[in-house]
Amino acid sequence: MSKPGFTDVRDRGFGARAPVDAALAVIDSRAERLPSESVPLAEAAGRVLAEPVRSATNVPAFERSAMDGFALRACETDGRALALVGAALPAKPFARALEAGEAVRVTTGAPVPAGADAVLMVERAEAGEASVRAKESVPAGKHVARVGEDVARGAEVLPAGRALRPQDAGILAAIGAARVRVVRRPVVAVLATGNELLPPGAVPSGFRIADSNSPMLAALAARDGAIALPTRYVPDDFARTRDALSRACDEADVVFVTGGTSVGGEDHSPLAVAALGELAVHGIAVRPASPTGIGFVRGKPVFLLPGNPVACLCAYDLFASRAVRKLGGRAPDLPYARQRAVLSAEVPSAVGRVDYVRVRVRADGSAEPLPSGGASKLSTVVEADGFVLVPANRAELAAGETVDVWLYG
Amino acid sequence: MSKPGFTDVRDRGFGARAPVDAALAVIDSRAERLPSESVPLAEAAGRVLAEPVRSATNVPAFERSAMDGFALRACETDGRALALVGAALPAKPFARALEAGEAVRVTTGAPVPAGADAVLMVERAEAGEASVRAKESVPAGKHVARVGEDVARGAEVLPAGRALRPQDAGILAAIGAARVRVVRRPVVAVLATGNELLPPGAVPSGFRIADSNSPMLAALAARDGAIALPTRYVPDDFARTRDALSRACDEADVVFVTGGTSVGGEDHSPLAVAALGELAVHGIAVRPASPTGIGFVRGKPVFLLPGNPVACLCAYDLFASRAVRKLGGRAPDLPYARQRAVLSAEVPSAVGRVDYVRVRVRADGSAEPLPSGGASKLSTVVEADGFVLVPANRAELAAGETVDVWLYG
Repeated sequence: MSKPGFTDVRDRGFGARAPVDAALAVIDSRAERLPSESVPLAEAAGRVLAEPVRSATNVPAFERSAMDGFALRACETDGRALALVGAALPAKPFARALEAGEAVRVTTGAPVPAGADAVLMVERAEAGEASVRAKESVPAGKHVARVGEDVARGAEVLPAGRALRPQDAGILAAIGAARVRVVRRPVVAVLATGNELLPPGAVPSGFRIADSNSPMLAALAARDGAIALPTRYVPDDFARTRDALSRACDEADVVFVTGGTSVGGEDHSPLAVAALGELAVHGIAVRPASPTGIGFVRGKPVFLLPGNPVACLCAYDLFASRAVRKLGGRAPDLPYARQRAVLSAEVPSAVGRVDYVRVRVRADGSAEPLPSGGASKLSTVVEADGFVLVPANRAELAAGETVDVWLYG
Repeated sequence: MSKPGFTDVRDRGFGARAPVDAALAVIDSRAERLPSESVPLAEAAGRVLAEPVRSATNVPAFERSAMDGFALRACETDGRALALVGAALPAKPFARALEAGEAVRVTTGAPVPAGADAVLMVERAEAGEASVRAKESVPAGKHVARVGEDVARGAEVLPAGRALRPQDAGILAAIGAARVRVVRRPVVAVLATGNELLPPGAVPSGFRIADSNSPMLAALAARDGAIALPTRYVPDDFARTRDALSRACDEADVVFVTGGTSVGGEDHSPLAVAALGELAVHGIAVRPASPTGIGFVRGKPVFLLPGNPVACLCAYDLFASRAVRKLGGRAPDLPYARQRAVLSAEVPSAVGRVDYVRVRVRADGSAEPLPSGGASKLSTVVEADGFVLVPANRAELAAGETVDVWLYG
């Protein structure tokens, strides 16, 4: 394939843009969960379990006092005096079984001695140096944590696919798990195309601008559980775009190409994907990210993300994010909190197209659509509190309508 | 102060437990934002801005085409033929100003030449090799991104206190910021007390149990933007608890002590805080975390978190988390998404006390309270989808009542 030169600046044409649902179906059918890896417990929180975890042990493994007080026989809490014959502390059990007429002091977490079947709280006891008397009777089992009452040996503690929460790390520790098998974190390669781009941190000068998409994409990928490799900068050249894409598909699980995604003569990335693999989707009926592409090279998903930063964010949120989360074993839903809100103004759209509409959430809880247009204005998504999606079957959303707002914050 | 021996097992007494609001007021009045530090842009997302960021540059810094098409004079889009005199690409401007009767090809992001005031989209043009004609007229300014229309030089781009989102990293790159000043991440020291504790990863054996609170707390602290130091294990001994606490207050910005927080003879941590500084709150009217303490040692907040894991999570969520977030410059609100739900059953409580009630969210969206009790059963917070808080002024929540559920997921 020859390098398309500048004189080719013309609309190669998108043909019919793919419906959003069709693009999502391509992702759902072809982005598969990555293999698993073993990580130490300290790194488990936030990761996704690759297989269910069963407990090899009972928690607790012994009868344990749930209170500070006195271990005794419930049937002897009728007010009689019991001989205080010793004590049990955590990890320091009373040395023998309790006999009739006896009690031992216990603290929370201490093993309950054999022969005792209840714990009398210290507040409900009249205790001297050598004896104790219950101020009220307690039933058998009172304040005694039974063997396996938290986790029974053999029970499934956590299911496969669980995104591990802080308390899950706790229960994994409780059952003695030193390591867990989790889904490998997706590795993302970002190729930023465009002769005008300076790397982030550079001060824009002359007609060159700083690459704002890569730092945004790296942070988005991290949010979705992935690891972004350092961005590679690729000039507007077909062969170099193709070669960089091929290398990226060796190094990463998923590749994002920003810029040059449309149908003009300088838009090399769609042609590079088609040359190396399959350009499954090119052009999607979504505003402002219509020049988005989805392809596969040697089985790796490749996302062509528009260079305009708002369109890039929209294309990431709706499409690339879903693939990243699926590769990582996560739920495919949008990773934003959702809030119901009344629209303060009409949102125009068109049947057949999804609109990604930035909104501000007002103090009264209503959602104010921000002026549309300006896919290049990153400030609009910085000022927005979130976005509303106008479904493909709606020509507009009406003022006063209650909608879902997906919150950035 | 002498070491309290085992024979002191008795209720030292909490006296009146502090209302939850009073405990929160102590945190709010005394946990102050940490100093700032400078971080490179690549590490900025997720951090909290210590000062507002203003732009030293206009974005865009030059008039830029927002479309692929033709730069021309809007007043000449009346159907007349315009001479195609050249082209502009990103970072490759047309060399001179446009004269009357002329047009140049432009791609998205290319500088618009002086003399041109509009861009005609390629789809709206009839173009040959040497000339172009507009199929419809366009107004001046059409598809031209004005200088500073995204960010004006001198404008505040992001306010102090902003928790930086992925798109914020993008706009910081766009204005050429190489580094940003953010609030330092709080450093958390965790002291786990209890002779019975084995470190996480160890298999529980005999009467010893694995420490499940530390891995949970480290993950919670990370979620709230903090860094947990490796846990220190402290035996049930007053002097060693006091000395470990003193060292921890040198090393960290906030200290968590788990276990031994109540009023029995083996509860050394409240006495250690009092010996080194001030035990401002001890005992809070909240279930299941009533044996929680809040103190200050050399200005550092110290949280005494109950050893029972559910109580530990509750005390972290309601109290310690708030301090961590305030130190880190974050909003003090609970860091969980909130969902309104109808309670499927009554939740008993008591006036004067806040209850932290674990709930499951059913398929129909209603919230099912899980059996209360079992502050030691971590499985209950693993199985729960979130929690409901019963306010102090309510004796119960009624079945059918609509409440806020704070979601763990």
